[in-house]
Amino acid sequence: MGSKETPYKVTLTEEEMPKAWYNIQPDLPNQLPPPLSPMTKEPAGPEDFIPLFPMELIKQEMSPERFIEIPEEVREVYRLYRPSPLHRAYRLEKELDTPARIFYKDESVSMAGSHKPNTAIAQAYYNKQEGVKRICTETGAGQWGSALALGCKFFGIELQVYMVKVSYEQKPYRRAMMEVWGADVFASPTDMTESGRAVLAEDPECPGSLGIAISEAVEMALKRDDTKYSLGSVLNHVCMHQTVIGLEAKAQMEKVDAYPDVVIGCVGGGSNFAGVSFPFMMDKLAGKSDVRCIAVEPTSCPTLTKGKYEYDYGDEAGLAPIVMMYTLGHKFVPSAIHAGGLRYHGDSPLVSALVHEGYVEAVAYPQTQVFEAAMTFARTEGMIIAPETSHALKCAIDEALKCKESGESRDILFNLSGHGLLDLKGYEEYMAGNLQD
Amino acid sequence: MGSKETPYKVTLTEEEMPKAWYNIQPDLPNQLPPPLSPMTKEPAGPEDFIPLFPMELIKQEMSPERFIEIPEEVREVYRLYRPSPLHRAYRLEKELDTPARIFYKDESVSMAGSHKPNTAIAQAYYNKQEGVKRICTETGAGQWGSALALGCKFFGIELQVYMVKVSYEQKPYRRAMMEVWGADVFASPTDMTESGRAVLAEDPECPGSLGIAISEAVEMALKRDDTKYSLGSVLNHVCMHQTVIGLEAKAQMEKVDAYPDVVIGCVGGGSNFAGVSFPFMMDKLAGKSDVRCIAVEPTSCPTLTKGKYEYDYGDEAGLAPIVMMYTLGHKFVPSAIHAGGLRYHGDSPLVSALVHEGYVEAVAYPQTQVFEAAMTFARTEGMIIAPETSHALKCAIDEALKCKESGESRDILFNLSGHGLLDLKGYEEYMAGNLQD
Repeated sequence: MGSKETPYKVTLTEEEMPKAWYNIQPDLPNQLPPPLSPMTKEPAGPEDFIPLFPMELIKQEMSPERFIEIPEEVREVYRLYRPSPLHRAYRLEKELDTPARIFYKDESVSMAGSHKPNTAIAQAYYNKQEGVKRICTETGAGQWGSALALGCKFFGIELQVYMVKVSYEQKPYRRAMMEVWGADVFASPTDMTESGRAVLAEDPECPGSLGIAISEAVEMALKRDDTKYSLGSVLNHVCMHQTVIGLEAKAQMEKVDAYPDVVIGCVGGGSNFAGVSFPFMMDKLAGKSDVRCIAVEPTSCPTLTKGKYEYDYGDEAGLAPIVMMYTLGHKFVPSAIHAGGLRYHGDSPLVSALVHEGYVEAVAYPQTQVFEAAMTFARTEGMIIAPETSHALKCAIDEALKCKESGESRDILFNLSGHGLLDLKGYEEYMAGNLQD
Repeated sequence: MGSKETPYKVTLTEEEMPKAWYNIQPDLPNQLPPPLSPMTKEPAGPEDFIPLFPMELIKQEMSPERFIEIPEEVREVYRLYRPSPLHRAYRLEKELDTPARIFYKDESVSMAGSHKPNTAIAQAYYNKQEGVKRICTETGAGQWGSALALGCKFFGIELQVYMVKVSYEQKPYRRAMMEVWGADVFASPTDMTESGRAVLAEDPECPGSLGIAISEAVEMALKRDDTKYSLGSVLNHVCMHQTVIGLEAKAQMEKVDAYPDVVIGCVGGGSNFAGVSFPFMMDKLAGKSDVRCIAVEPTSCPTLTKGKYEYDYGDEAGLAPIVMMYTLGHKFVPSAIHAGGLRYHGDSPLVSALVHEGYVEAVAYPQTQVFEAAMTFARTEGMIIAPETSHALKCAIDEALKCKESGESRDILFNLSGHGLLDLKGYEEYMAGNLQD
């Protein structure tokens, strides 16, 4: 706990930007249960992933190294928007009348408006290095698709995006954004893939889900040698690329003599939560810190709070590897909440393991409470944030209010994973009283 | 001209944020022709402005002081997003293969997404200081209305926004944004005012214009003692508040041993251009610099390039003061281009005087060329910028290409006045080939 006063924003220079990502795998108390091949149901080796990912990402997925160097070409693109600022939420603190200090790491400053480019840029780079011509991917709210479109544009790779239909319809501007950056975008389920056609045959009105869209993208990637697949969350290497968030936040908090008592992130597939929390979890796993890490999800897709910890497919059709994780079952289709990026049946194996072993707490909130928190933030800090992010905010507010009750001054850090400028339809519905949980 | 290499972003600390705005009036080679009362057509004194503005802003409008202190309460709100970064557009330079160095000041980082909060926050503060309960204003593209909604929210003032109908329809999310920040928003022309009803009687399908919306807001402000009016551009005090942009940019360029040969801003009412250029114009007027300052406007609303320098009303109905400026006539209704913020028949008297006396150059571009430039920027620098801003970008690109022809290395600075995340409809139309000049 440092002195009460800090600047409104703590910044880092480009030289202070992390030079390596943090890989939590060697620090885990128990090794991760291995992924299984969807074909054989046997533990999957690198050869099972070769049709999907470039070799360097496969190595990172299973790496025993604690730190992996960020290539200079990736850092060069990071410099367009990184290091991102760490804000002190003075006005929110005042509104809540809390003795807590609330900090937020602002990942909305990337050109795509979220944390997603941190891994998209890295993935596009490694694919390019290995001669890949085309990437297929899925996107929920459109954050991931636009981030990867950006990454692929920087490194000259073609991109096909399968966008969950409900988001495709709710967020036409996200699609336009992807097209500005040169991607081809399709509403999933499509009739272009066997997986898509199978779903449409059962339910022509299916709103789609991340699981279905993943199946479509994986299927298309498997069809061609020059084409790979890319995932925006869940996987170990994706979580690792996002640790640039927490590593920067840690350096920024050190600058003002602070260390978080609580670190909070929203969870869809888990990468932004992993990104902000793992560099602090590193201290906790080493016995050097009592930091609480809280993963926040929607009550309508309660993977961590109500799911089972078991082996399940990452996608709806069962084409992706089978992993040990909290899951609601790979056929689960969540309701069409505005936080499209949190509508995923499973979760990162790394985050799941840490929840299972008691290192990470999980909470869930209904979307009306989440939008109420977002309105409070907009009217105090001024920022209009994404519905996904608003889950983390809601939890941060609750933690700050607990401090008010107990009279304790704690340092709360949450990840502002994205802005809500393309989510104003959700805000409109909330203000009109038309939002349902 | 400094060394070739600079960081991607040059930042300032909160302590380095300017403590005073720069008022160009005392440095002008000739005094500005006085504004005239719309009633008497005689030179207007402070008493003519009292029904519209708080006294402190009236004083600033006519102030002989070169620097006016930024109140600490305003600086406190500025700190939420200021100082804004100065970027070096390395990737754009490479794409253009130019020896020029291109810098851009990124004002899109404000919560409203543009430079407008710089004056909105100041104006809301001074109104609050003088006990004003309610402000009425107009907005074109919605940038100004959302900025003032934000400012009014921070200082607890009610806000009514008259939004140009064509933008109200093209940009529903801008309206939602204003409502998130607590404002009431109406599509102008409305049937709530005499000015609005008169326009609708002649043309029920009128798409609106800034001039008409100003008339409506002024009329409503004049009706009540506890209500004032606020303008987002044109006026001297608004241009002055925006100089925080150029003052920061100057300090940032000094940090990397650079000074611009050319400073570029788009012009609707003139405030963002004034903001970025006046602190450099200060040097030019003092004979210390040969900097070229270029004001960029749309060919469909060519105020500076084809208008007349004469006395005209600031609004359509003739309620606002009469000022000496470049104008297309206060009855001029420009076509419905996407750069709604540049659809104004007149221009800032300060900018107009500097154009008239040869200190400022003016150029105009058609909107397809402007969107083409914006696409180039999105695909090199990654940022999706506002159609208004894209006018400045287009000019910066042309200047950089001239350097390529001549082989000269020049430093070009343009103001990135706002992002285009709520303007993606324009990008969609451009990509579909449906955009007209």
